[in-house]
Amino acid sequence: MKPLGPKVVALGGGHGLYASLSALRRVTDRLTAVVTVADDGGSSGRLRRELGVLPPGDLRMALAALCGDDEWGQTWRDVVQHRFRSEGDLRGHAVGNLLIVALWELLAENPDSTVAGLDWVGRLLGAHGRVLPMAAVPMDIVAEVRGADPSRPDEIGQVRGQVACASTPGAVLGVSLVPADPPACPETIAAVEDADWIVFGPGSWFTSVLPHLKVPALARALTSSKARRVVALNLAPQPGETDDFSPQRHLEVLQAHAPDLTVDVVLADDGVVDDPDALDKAVRELGGRLVLAGVAADDGSPRHEPARLAQAFVQIFSE
Amino acid sequence: MKPLGPKVVALGGGHGLYASLSALRRVTDRLTAVVTVADDGGSSGRLRRELGVLPPGDLRMALAALCGDDEWGQTWRDVVQHRFRSEGDLRGHAVGNLLIVALWELLAENPDSTVAGLDWVGRLLGAHGRVLPMAAVPMDIVAEVRGADPSRPDEIGQVRGQVACASTPGAVLGVSLVPADPPACPETIAAVEDADWIVFGPGSWFTSVLPHLKVPALARALTSSKARRVVALNLAPQPGETDDFSPQRHLEVLQAHAPDLTVDVVLADDGVVDDPDALDKAVRELGGRLVLAGVAADDGSPRHEPARLAQAFVQIFSE
Repeated sequence: MKPLGPKVVALGGGHGLYASLSALRRVTDRLTAVVTVADDGGSSGRLRRELGVLPPGDLRMALAALCGDDEWGQTWRDVVQHRFRSEGDLRGHAVGNLLIVALWELLAENPDSTVAGLDWVGRLLGAHGRVLPMAAVPMDIVAEVRGADPSRPDEIGQVRGQVACASTPGAVLGVSLVPADPPACPETIAAVEDADWIVFGPGSWFTSVLPHLKVPALARALTSSKARRVVALNLAPQPGETDDFSPQRHLEVLQAHAPDLTVDVVLADDGVVDDPDALDKAVRELGGRLVLAGVAADDGSPRHEPARLAQAFVQIFSE
Repeated sequence: MKPLGPKVVALGGGHGLYASLSALRRVTDRLTAVVTVADDGGSSGRLRRELGVLPPGDLRMALAALCGDDEWGQTWRDVVQHRFRSEGDLRGHAVGNLLIVALWELLAENPDSTVAGLDWVGRLLGAHGRVLPMAAVPMDIVAEVRGADPSRPDEIGQVRGQVACASTPGAVLGVSLVPADPPACPETIAAVEDADWIVFGPGSWFTSVLPHLKVPALARALTSSKARRVVALNLAPQPGETDDFSPQRHLEVLQAHAPDLTVDVVLADDGVVDDPDALDKAVRELGGRLVLAGVAADDGSPRHEPARLAQAFVQIFSE
């Protein structure tokens, strides 16, 4: 019998989580994605406003990342990822978003409808793992920003909403959530408590990676879980969110958002770290060790290459 | 090995075709629905205008009628039949319509994309049969109507569009299609040529049953096929389309739209035929025989009971 691999929970949203899941699915058959539900832009934002549901887009992308390898899985992945390009009512909607919210409406009398709907889409895709939300209700991200108004560059104020936070011209100092203490999803908490490894990032640091730590029940589970914790750093600062951030600065911000969280391993690409000693020092202050590995794509884009990232995870999980 | 049953092609659209398919799926495993593509109302009409595709609604309903009996088939049937009830962009759209048009867009480079997309939804549903369109392009129904304008009750004019034809206050005399000679779907023609039995109706007579006979290539196949032909009559006249129509009048109209078509069997409910002798005479003039059977639901609604309709088809196909 093929070994199942460790129980891994990957946290994030959007393209960063897509990258980590594309790698982790090669490493383990026991994979759970815990996904941000604070998006307020695009198709997700419109569905959230029109139907009062969780924004489905990041959940859809995570499901797509886990699709089966056969023609069935690949075709339904292409369907759920397909976006209408018309100029009418459907403009910009991703089909999988519509499918997820339809299942939620259809299963609404089921107390477990959020998870049941996601599980049905997972079965449709033949998904290699499970996708769960970081909280049971739609969230708003609120960022503390210096210079959100460029005419007053030193003033610190608040910016609300994922789109606004990700595109503010100011410097993001930290994020919190509204509501501040949302109901968690029981299956999410159980997966975190039961995990062998928890993977933070890569991804938009303030809007996809840190929000999970501001859901109190989830933060407690992430901090107290017996699992070991890996932080996978981004390959480049992200314009708008983390301009000019060094790798160390990413870790400082993580620690500021979850002071009780210990980290066992920090994974960074060996080609993009300018000052390995400074990063190593920052990692040791978090209680962990630094792993430098070639995980970037060859094309020069700030994208992880799934096979290389998978190899790095294999190494980390086996040590 | 279980016998597969005869090769049956069922023609129609909407609720009437749903009824015949719900019955025929109990009778044979070799079932093809050939579905009208002239709808211009509701979700289908909006998708047709927004995306330039075939109206998917009648195709979706036929696929739903054929769904698998297990939890998988029933759940995905409920999903494809689910309609959004919001007040926003998605208002009134059936999820299956969105899924079908997404597959058509996704497979657009495939010369066979219409049929391939429908086959994928059929596979999703575990469908007991295949669903094909009556033509390869969207159609408009044009009705010749007496008294379309109530202030001039004797004037004969034209009404265009399925919704307008089905709801005209005047008397519909006949229908034609625009374009008048649309490309047929090769798989549809092949299914008709290869059939053992072809079933016309029940359904909206002018807008769901007769349009197939106005697609020239399909009409030729329907007329020349070696298959035997059954007409399943409606249980009641339909307000707007066939007010005051006797069963015989339905057959006269059928013959007027396809003078070369012979009919082997006419099936009518024994509880709703006021003048069996007159109907029998009309059936014999078409070259067929009349079968009277109890096929209506017990609740008094003009709906066919699938089990009873199935039993009538078993009897007809075995004689």
